[in-house]
Amino acid sequence: MTTITHLETIDVRYPTSRWLIGSDAVHTDPDYSAAYVILRTDGDLEGHGFTFTIGRGTEVCIAGIKALEHLVVGRDVDEITSAMGDFWREVTNDAQLRWLGPEKGVMHLALAAVVNAVWDLWAKQERKPLWKLLADMTPAQLVSCLDFRYVTDVLTPAEAVEMLENQARGRSGRESDLAAAGIPAYTTSAGWLGYDDEKIRRLCRDALAEGWMRFKMKVGSSIDDDARRAALIRDEIGPDNVLMMDANQRWDVDTAIEWMQDLKRFDPMWIEEPTSPDDVLGHARIAEAVAPVGVATGEHVHNRVMFKQFMAAGAMAFCQLDACRLGGFNEAIVVTLLARRFGVPVCPHAGGVGLCEYHQHIAAFDHICLGGDLETRLIEFADHLHEHFVDPVRIERGRYRLPSRPGTSAEMKRESLETYRFPWPGDEVPPVPEFRE
Amino acid sequence: MTTITHLETIDVRYPTSRWLIGSDAVHTDPDYSAAYVILRTDGDLEGHGFTFTIGRGTEVCIAGIKALEHLVVGRDVDEITSAMGDFWREVTNDAQLRWLGPEKGVMHLALAAVVNAVWDLWAKQERKPLWKLLADMTPAQLVSCLDFRYVTDVLTPAEAVEMLENQARGRSGRESDLAAAGIPAYTTSAGWLGYDDEKIRRLCRDALAEGWMRFKMKVGSSIDDDARRAALIRDEIGPDNVLMMDANQRWDVDTAIEWMQDLKRFDPMWIEEPTSPDDVLGHARIAEAVAPVGVATGEHVHNRVMFKQFMAAGAMAFCQLDACRLGGFNEAIVVTLLARRFGVPVCPHAGGVGLCEYHQHIAAFDHICLGGDLETRLIEFADHLHEHFVDPVRIERGRYRLPSRPGTSAEMKRESLETYRFPWPGDEVPPVPEFRE
Repeated sequence: MTTITHLETIDVRYPTSRWLIGSDAVHTDPDYSAAYVILRTDGDLEGHGFTFTIGRGTEVCIAGIKALEHLVVGRDVDEITSAMGDFWREVTNDAQLRWLGPEKGVMHLALAAVVNAVWDLWAKQERKPLWKLLADMTPAQLVSCLDFRYVTDVLTPAEAVEMLENQARGRSGRESDLAAAGIPAYTTSAGWLGYDDEKIRRLCRDALAEGWMRFKMKVGSSIDDDARRAALIRDEIGPDNVLMMDANQRWDVDTAIEWMQDLKRFDPMWIEEPTSPDDVLGHARIAEAVAPVGVATGEHVHNRVMFKQFMAAGAMAFCQLDACRLGGFNEAIVVTLLARRFGVPVCPHAGGVGLCEYHQHIAAFDHICLGGDLETRLIEFADHLHEHFVDPVRIERGRYRLPSRPGTSAEMKRESLETYRFPWPGDEVPPVPEFRE
Repeated sequence: MTTITHLETIDVRYPTSRWLIGSDAVHTDPDYSAAYVILRTDGDLEGHGFTFTIGRGTEVCIAGIKALEHLVVGRDVDEITSAMGDFWREVTNDAQLRWLGPEKGVMHLALAAVVNAVWDLWAKQERKPLWKLLADMTPAQLVSCLDFRYVTDVLTPAEAVEMLENQARGRSGRESDLAAAGIPAYTTSAGWLGYDDEKIRRLCRDALAEGWMRFKMKVGSSIDDDARRAALIRDEIGPDNVLMMDANQRWDVDTAIEWMQDLKRFDPMWIEEPTSPDDVLGHARIAEAVAPVGVATGEHVHNRVMFKQFMAAGAMAFCQLDACRLGGFNEAIVVTLLARRFGVPVCPHAGGVGLCEYHQHIAAFDHICLGGDLETRLIEFADHLHEHFVDPVRIERGRYRLPSRPGTSAEMKRESLETYRFPWPGDEVPPVPEFRE
């Protein structure tokens, strides 16, 4: 028996706004941050988890995490993991805290940090990376970890078990294939706003030389500038490599349609976050108008109920779930199952800090257990802040290598946690982390 | 020139869970609470505002309010009120805080407290109750206070001005009528779960004797018990008075449909919150299946983008907006305009603590400025905690009397703020507030 004895919180902020990049049309000065949780036990085990934020307000998420402490501390790890679905329902449905969401905003972000720290504990206890812990469960075991409340009209637990059973035969083959091939990724290195022609061309050539085949660019500040950059990137990468566009919620519905009618000529595979992440019906209208360009969204889509509707309405061609925005891995897996049900590829949100580390596990689970076509399942990749992790992602020729260390890969180095703990020591900006173009 | 010099926060919790009523199928032990804000100025003026909560987690909203302080303190009141729309956009779109929503959950609740405190300041400065401040603006002035971002596909600012201008002629007549007649309300006094037959009959008779004509009951815990209580209430109130049912998000979509097919025989006017407040398409399916019973929702619907879709999809027959859940009065007015655009009556959420005080102003604005049929615009009423307000609501024969004191009616008495400030003094439960059945 192992008991969770303490929940420690750390407000960690990397002063990335000093890079003067990483910003987009809406988030102009992000300091990549984490509301970080360490669950300590009476044994040697520690569970680490976090939710990703971009600076101010991380302290509000920390307050949210502390509000959940009474639901976790004092509990036995085996009791939790043997009834993981019940645990998730309990922490999501505290009769008073529920009012603050339900299942959205700060409390859901906070929940993700806590829930993912529990998964980290569990995976370390089993001495497996998270994806392997998931892949080794029977369909019934896995489904018992999940909550289908409010989505049973499109997917019941029994149907989920059946879906997993139908793919069970190929699991081990897909696992070996994935270990050999890695998970495909895309890069935004050349795509940020405000780069001049020469820099865009140089960054495209560098990325091509490193083996990248998929390129995302930010749009939405000026249509002329967007067209200029799109033309340059398409010229450099050629017609066969993939281009994606990301508007970061910059437009109203009609503006999105108008603007994309123009940018369509550069043959983007998707337009990401064209408008408010809450606007299911708006996205459906945009999707219809801009086809064959697909609509991608999800990094701000807050729970499984929203994803259900996006998919049912044909408003989401690519599912960019985020296991920090959602209520941790439990809900991220439910959304992955929904995506499979609707035939929508899962291309998890990444970048920021630690999101690449988290989401490689979801992508591996999706391919191994649900058998989705690997080449349509792309994870974002941004090459920064990985040096602060104990088990950082490894990228080769534009693909993620499968992680092998036990846990969720979310553990930051003790030294990084101390250096970037906020408020910064002496109120001085700590060393600005290295940035690799 | 009047400058906002301080933002004070108070975590106020009334130990109402000791009443053992006021609970529903989902919120089993609410302690009606407020994350309370006082904006102090260098003059005599103070602006009071709050967001409503139900106990644990109020401290997280307080942290959210503090995160907004830098956007408000040090600013000139006239500069804010002369460009209220810009102010709202600024406080909603802080480039780092936005990540925590956007426009939902704790940060949006916190925003409401701050924004409504600014409206209180403004109304007190103009020496008018809020509804009168709104009703005396020209259509162009009023619309300039609002933000139509993400809803211009169904309502542009120009269309909103036109809508208000079309109703301008009858304004003063409607204002006098409203002063004479009051705003219609409904009661839940007899409708709580767990009452025996005799108590239900007695409470119905009491309410009828006081002039009530509209009665809401909670449903969703047991279909047999719901049917028993519905039969009793319908028997007592007769076929002509109005019955409403409230499931507090208890059901999945298919369960809601099934359950209401049965309860329909008691002729409820609406079924409230049948499922997740995020499920626009689910509500649309329910609405189609349970007609002519209308679907009511809104107290947990978090922003104008969600309301836009609910109305456009025919998923909301009654709009139960909440100016604490939404980003304050600015967004509540936008939603009221959207409701008028779609022909959906606004029946604001109330009860709890202070919600009746807030929402009478919205209902008065709706009738005076938008000319909606008064008898379909009902405000919830619960007769508790009003004694803690400086300017409490006044109810006569089941109708709200128009408030006349300057401000938003949200100011709590200094003594109440001190007595119920949390953590409670000496960690002891303060006097349990009086409860009137």
